Amino acid sequence: MSLDLSYRLGKNVTSVYSNLAQKLASHQGEQYPLHVGDTWRKPAFAIEKLESFDDLNRYTVVAGLSSLRQRAAQFLSERQNETVDPSEILITGGGTGGLTALLFSLLQAGDEIMILAPFWPLVKGASQLVGAQPVIVPFFGESLSDSQAIDRVEQYRTAKTKVLYINHPNNPTGELLAKSQLNALIQWAKANQIWVISDEVYDLFVYEGEHTYARTLEKENVIALYSLSKSFGMAGYRCAYLCGPKWVIDHTERMLTFSQYSAPTPAQYVGLEVLTQKGLDWAAESKEMYAKVGKICAEILKMPPPKSGTFLFVDVSKALENQTLDQLLEKCATQGLLVAPGVSFGPYPTHIRLCFTAAPADLVIRGVQLLAQILGI
Amino acid sequence: MSLDLSYRLGKNVTSVYSNLAQKLASHQGEQYPLHVGDTWRKPAFAIEKLESFDDLNRYTVVAGLSSLRQRAAQFLSERQNETVDPSEILITGGGTGGLTALLFSLLQAGDEIMILAPFWPLVKGASQLVGAQPVIVPFFGESLSDSQAIDRVEQYRTAKTKVLYINHPNNPTGELLAKSQLNALIQWAKANQIWVISDEVYDLFVYEGEHTYARTLEKENVIALYSLSKSFGMAGYRCAYLCGPKWVIDHTERMLTFSQYSAPTPAQYVGLEVLTQKGLDWAAESKEMYAKVGKICAEILKMPPPKSGTFLFVDVSKALENQTLDQLLEKCATQGLLVAPGVSFGPYPTHIRLCFTAAPADLVIRGVQLLAQILGI
Repeated sequence: MSLDLSYRLGKNVTSVYSNLAQKLASHQGEQYPLHVGDTWRKPAFAIEKLESFDDLNRYTVVAGLSSLRQRAAQFLSERQNETVDPSEILITGGGTGGLTALLFSLLQAGDEIMILAPFWPLVKGASQLVGAQPVIVPFFGESLSDSQAIDRVEQYRTAKTKVLYINHPNNPTGELLAKSQLNALIQWAKANQIWVISDEVYDLFVYEGEHTYARTLEKENVIALYSLSKSFGMAGYRCAYLCGPKWVIDHTERMLTFSQYSAPTPAQYVGLEVLTQKGLDWAAESKEMYAKVGKICAEILKMPPPKSGTFLFVDVSKALENQTLDQLLEKCATQGLLVAPGVSFGPYPTHIRLCFTAAPADLVIRGVQLLAQILGI
Repeated sequence: MSLDLSYRLGKNVTSVYSNLAQKLASHQGEQYPLHVGDTWRKPAFAIEKLESFDDLNRYTVVAGLSSLRQRAAQFLSERQNETVDPSEILITGGGTGGLTALLFSLLQAGDEIMILAPFWPLVKGASQLVGAQPVIVPFFGESLSDSQAIDRVEQYRTAKTKVLYINHPNNPTGELLAKSQLNALIQWAKANQIWVISDEVYDLFVYEGEHTYARTLEKENVIALYSLSKSFGMAGYRCAYLCGPKWVIDHTERMLTFSQYSAPTPAQYVGLEVLTQKGLDWAAESKEMYAKVGKICAEILKMPPPKSGTFLFVDVSKALENQTLDQLLEKCATQGLLVAPGVSFGPYPTHIRLCFTAAPADLVIRGVQLLAQILGI
């Protein structure tokens, strides 16, 4: 017996980027860090305004400033054209912390969470941390009909299935779900007493088609996640919110008390500023810029433009005929480019993901041109 | 079967304060919210300085700004008069989020964590959330000799004991641990392959006696927790740091990636400002004020002054001869006073805790005078 750690994530948990970051550091020229989902744009809020708040240094109540819960409820009501009550809102310290609190709230150890893939990488690890079993369901990118979609999830359902996680607009593919398909999934889940976590953090960045708000279809078993990080370019501030049935929100607030306590107070005050027309204007401007750069990058890589979000999920199978994915990623890193390996998003060993909003457009485009060159496109 | 939640905290998880807050709201006069550990003092940092940072809106790396890890390492090195390496530091989004990441890192589901009582209430709930079994060990307030202390922990040890949690300076009692006793506990833990979490968030607020930094006694099995919230009055910003063996810190960083991601960037920049002589000066001034108000409050309640921290743990057994603790708390709330029930801190049904720094001194003192009156002191 020895002093040992937990192995909630398996025995070898190292960051996929630690080795690549070293390669990157040895590179002399321009760097293209397109591996993390972030935005280079300054948020709509001017930081000096924070001076006027007297209690930035103090905790808020765990559920968040009641003014912010109201503002988020109103903001969401207008977006989805249906009234949301502030008691259905929980303010959290970032989407990741909010998701963890929600997983604590919904899942017992040993329960299964079905994750539609490709998926936002952190949801798998967070599920493992709370002791649940992630069940990866290949889904996006296959153009499934509604009945095929139900067949697919049914194929992976067991007696232990407790949660279905759907990220739409989807990171990394940029796909949207058709209203009928989303509804079919939610009703299937409800009939099987399964919770749906509808991760909608990219709802403001849809370039083609329309986003469907899951809770407009069904309220009983659906909890939606939104993030000020993604919507308003304020990832560093750490603020997000959940919207769900009041009793679930109340229970999740108790979990949040012990997992994280209240969201950062400065971020909450910034939240009051951006969950407004000003924030919407900022997001609309951003969307236009994002769509443009996303389209240019897709053209360079000879793939269809993204329908939503801030990522391209690139099939690199041709480039892997004479090298491994690790070798390809290393080659990119030694030339200053970081991208994320497809295996972080599910069973996609021949894909990579890049974030086309992580840096100003000209820099991103040069990075993507470099990638095209490396891939021989 | 129905849509059900998890019961990680038991079947009835409501806040002890939700009922009391309603009573408080119906009270017309002055309010004394002495139930939460917080400080009314403005922090040393001026918020307008944040304007000068260009990337407040962006994530940092998960482990925290390398400049802040260095600063924290240096700050701690000076405090404990022994060199700390930045690789032994992990920046977290508040002490609660840091503790949760650490518990994820150290504990498997089913493992036991021994918690010396009375204890900081959130540690019990956080342990339950991660699937560990909290084992409450009555300890502080009993003036145990070193060998009695070891007998006590040995009495509660099982084959599943994986962590010993010690909060010193202690919340809520204000007790310090003698160096010899702390060392005895740590060496006992080491001999039994048990991790020690040394929660030292009140290290800068010692009024009588001396705080011993646990990692100056033993490094192999000790991880210490510090909080900018407590040290520098910036609870709302959400920033804290862990100090432990590099391999444990690295592993905990991986957990943090999935449980919370990086600490708020504004809080990290504030951290760079306060982990300095300026911060120490602020803490020294605060300490003087805290000591003074703590002593006055203790005199009003006819109890010994606090040796450290920001709390008084008050024995109210006499007042419970003709009423329950709930009735007493309700009586306080209807007169504008909120305090925390002793049962939140362990098996102490005849105690209450109050925070004497939660509001300016004059307000706190009026609140404590009201309490003395209610208690018939």
